[in-house]
Amino acid sequence: MHIILLSGGSGKRLWPLSNDIRSKQFIKIFRTKDGGYESMVQRMYHQIREVDEGATVTIATSKTQASSIHNQLGDEVLVCVEPCRRDTFPAIVLATAYLHDVCGISQEEPVIVCPVDPYVEIDYFEALKKLAALAGEGAASLVLMGMEPTYPSEKYGYILPTDKKTVSGVKTFREKPDAETAKEYIDQGALWNGGVFAYRMKYVLEKAKQIIGYADYETLFDRYDSLDKISFDYAVVEKETDICVMRFQGQWKDLGTWNTLSEAMEEPCVGEAILNETCENVHVLNELDVPVLCMGLKNMVVSASPEGILVSDKEQSSYIKPFVDKIDQQVMFAEKSWGDFLVLDVTRESRTSKVTLKPGHSMNYHSHLRRDEIWNIISGKGRCVIDGVSRRVEAGDVLEMKAGSRHTIMADTELKIIEIQLGREISVHDKQKFELEIDGVGDKADS
Amino acid sequence: MHIILLSGGSGKRLWPLSNDIRSKQFIKIFRTKDGGYESMVQRMYHQIREVDEGATVTIATSKTQASSIHNQLGDEVLVCVEPCRRDTFPAIVLATAYLHDVCGISQEEPVIVCPVDPYVEIDYFEALKKLAALAGEGAASLVLMGMEPTYPSEKYGYILPTDKKTVSGVKTFREKPDAETAKEYIDQGALWNGGVFAYRMKYVLEKAKQIIGYADYETLFDRYDSLDKISFDYAVVEKETDICVMRFQGQWKDLGTWNTLSEAMEEPCVGEAILNETCENVHVLNELDVPVLCMGLKNMVVSASPEGILVSDKEQSSYIKPFVDKIDQQVMFAEKSWGDFLVLDVTRESRTSKVTLKPGHSMNYHSHLRRDEIWNIISGKGRCVIDGVSRRVEAGDVLEMKAGSRHTIMADTELKIIEIQLGREISVHDKQKFELEIDGVGDKADS
Repeated sequence: MHIILLSGGSGKRLWPLSNDIRSKQFIKIFRTKDGGYESMVQRMYHQIREVDEGATVTIATSKTQASSIHNQLGDEVLVCVEPCRRDTFPAIVLATAYLHDVCGISQEEPVIVCPVDPYVEIDYFEALKKLAALAGEGAASLVLMGMEPTYPSEKYGYILPTDKKTVSGVKTFREKPDAETAKEYIDQGALWNGGVFAYRMKYVLEKAKQIIGYADYETLFDRYDSLDKISFDYAVVEKETDICVMRFQGQWKDLGTWNTLSEAMEEPCVGEAILNETCENVHVLNELDVPVLCMGLKNMVVSASPEGILVSDKEQSSYIKPFVDKIDQQVMFAEKSWGDFLVLDVTRESRTSKVTLKPGHSMNYHSHLRRDEIWNIISGKGRCVIDGVSRRVEAGDVLEMKAGSRHTIMADTELKIIEIQLGREISVHDKQKFELEIDGVGDKADS
Repeated sequence: MHIILLSGGSGKRLWPLSNDIRSKQFIKIFRTKDGGYESMVQRMYHQIREVDEGATVTIATSKTQASSIHNQLGDEVLVCVEPCRRDTFPAIVLATAYLHDVCGISQEEPVIVCPVDPYVEIDYFEALKKLAALAGEGAASLVLMGMEPTYPSEKYGYILPTDKKTVSGVKTFREKPDAETAKEYIDQGALWNGGVFAYRMKYVLEKAKQIIGYADYETLFDRYDSLDKISFDYAVVEKETDICVMRFQGQWKDLGTWNTLSEAMEEPCVGEAILNETCENVHVLNELDVPVLCMGLKNMVVSASPEGILVSDKEQSSYIKPFVDKIDQQVMFAEKSWGDFLVLDVTRESRTSKVTLKPGHSMNYHSHLRRDEIWNIISGKGRCVIDGVSRRVEAGDVLEMKAGSRHTIMADTELKIIEIQLGREISVHDKQKFELEIDGVGDKADS
């Protein structure tokens, strides 16, 4: 099967583990069989592989997430990077065009689209297979999945089917209602709209021609920022008459708040934490190297990361967003394609970070106008180039780069560096990139 | 007046702000008039100065606290350092001998002894003056202060006075009782024994001659570790018949737990913290540079420091000690006579710290057998000596010291250094100190 996973934007509602550049789908909190932890996106990817080893998995996402996706899923997964965010209709068209125009998959093939972040079990993917089969057989131009509601939620749109069969026609759609209206919908047999659907590729490509003048993937990519923001539901689903819905009764949870996320945790603590015997229904996620001690807590979540500390009643945690919006905290930790960085200390005139480079990876060759930098290599081996001069480096070496100096470093083994930036105007925007050029012949020996 | 403040040992019950080397009396949580914060010991010192500007204040404490005391109170305060901990009788004798033999104060003079950590107001110090006057007049050999009990506490010993006058004789003493017995004592008119007493110095020096063969301060200091651990109450107070007690009715609180400490805070938060509108009776003490966000908390204390994070119900916080005893966390932050250090990052083969040196101060001249060190100067100016060679240093300089290399650094202005230690056996015990010797003439210019 071909599956497109929509990997959404930054999720401040799981602060301090999610922020502007770190999304909730990458937080590692689910226990794996080998005793480690995996993230939402890893869990879903492994579940898909379990149901269909040969599935084509394409993740439609923004540039900021591409590194994290490859770090967590490897290079085999397809990543369709949106040049900018334009809601789900352009994103789904781009990913479909990517599969057809770039990957060469026939436009007769069915594709499934679903969000990357619901918490589901294997039966969900078995149902997705059936959904694809229905689309492939031409049961309708568009085949939706409707979730059997478990309570009158105000968070979802509703689908009213024409009858109670497993697969039925669609009478109408309803936007997110209030709880009372939701109850009425459910009494009428409505299902939650979980944003899951299947179609043959040519269906969406044809719609794209009509609505946004789609010609091919590259042209679409180049003019992506000129497209209007519009959802797939609004642009396509709600206007389609040749449509059917398949019911799904299995587990399907949105883990968008600390309350729901902690419910899915198999153990109370991830990271270093101590709960005394009077704690009840407490979950701790601690990414720091120091312990969290909890005493006498009831129905609470505690989360600590380099960005900050959250201590919240579980119910209250769903109201977090406006408070996090007000926090003006620079990003302290980030995963990059080449490794990661963690800010250790900030003063008025300096910033100290720990930078980890993965074996075989390197930074861009770059310089800064308004800061000097010092690299203290604390472990590993590699090679640096400073102003065109290459040299081998290893633990114990110190490299000094004055403002304007061009520099890069490549890791042979995993390299850990304490980077010290010095200057009064330290900014991520002060960075000029260059093509790498190496002077002379051979390497200077380590001094 | 002459006052001896007993500054007790490490207080794990206020973890993570107190630990093996940081005591609760140095935590800055009380608002000052100029909008800053002061610690218990600073608050008490300023209160004493307010009541008696010329008071002689001597702090009897351990070596580990001497730096913090001078950092917080300046150099004017007298510090009587105990070579090792031997309970209150030896400590009081040593401090009394220090006042008499070292400071030359007449042994006819009265002295007041009291613990450094109760939370009190100015009336307490007015009462101490009266206590000293009573001792000076010879009202009794030993004059105690008895606190009017406000509840049947199990935490204090009790003093039974002979009558209800402000100053009365003492019928008997009672050890810490259970709550029911405490209630009986209170019904009988008993007072809390707060460890506050006054005497003429010759009284204690005479007792010291009889009990431990006291001769003079220096001899006592030298053989201090051979003395038995014994409390002043047990060795002297409970055996004395020429004794009286003065009632005190003002505020006198022990801030030994997070519960009691937070009650004394004038505002809910010290440090970066956000409480949402559903929080009730919540106190936050955050020493980190990242925010703490609290939502829906009731009757709780949250405290974060480089050592760890505590989230506790206020009642439960008094049971913290056994949990903290189990935490095997290296010291991450410490104040020293020359400044302070903060551990930023620890790996298997490295430790990165921020070291701050106060102007005019320097480290010992020292070397390490099993680690290399790199100093990255991030701000300030000073002078370093490495293997006998002196050079000026300033922000941006990098100094590399291989294992075995002798090194020190002196601050002209406040110096901030990112220190990187490299080796597989990094330990505070791997340090050899040397007399400072500088080779050659003049200084090497900065390279």
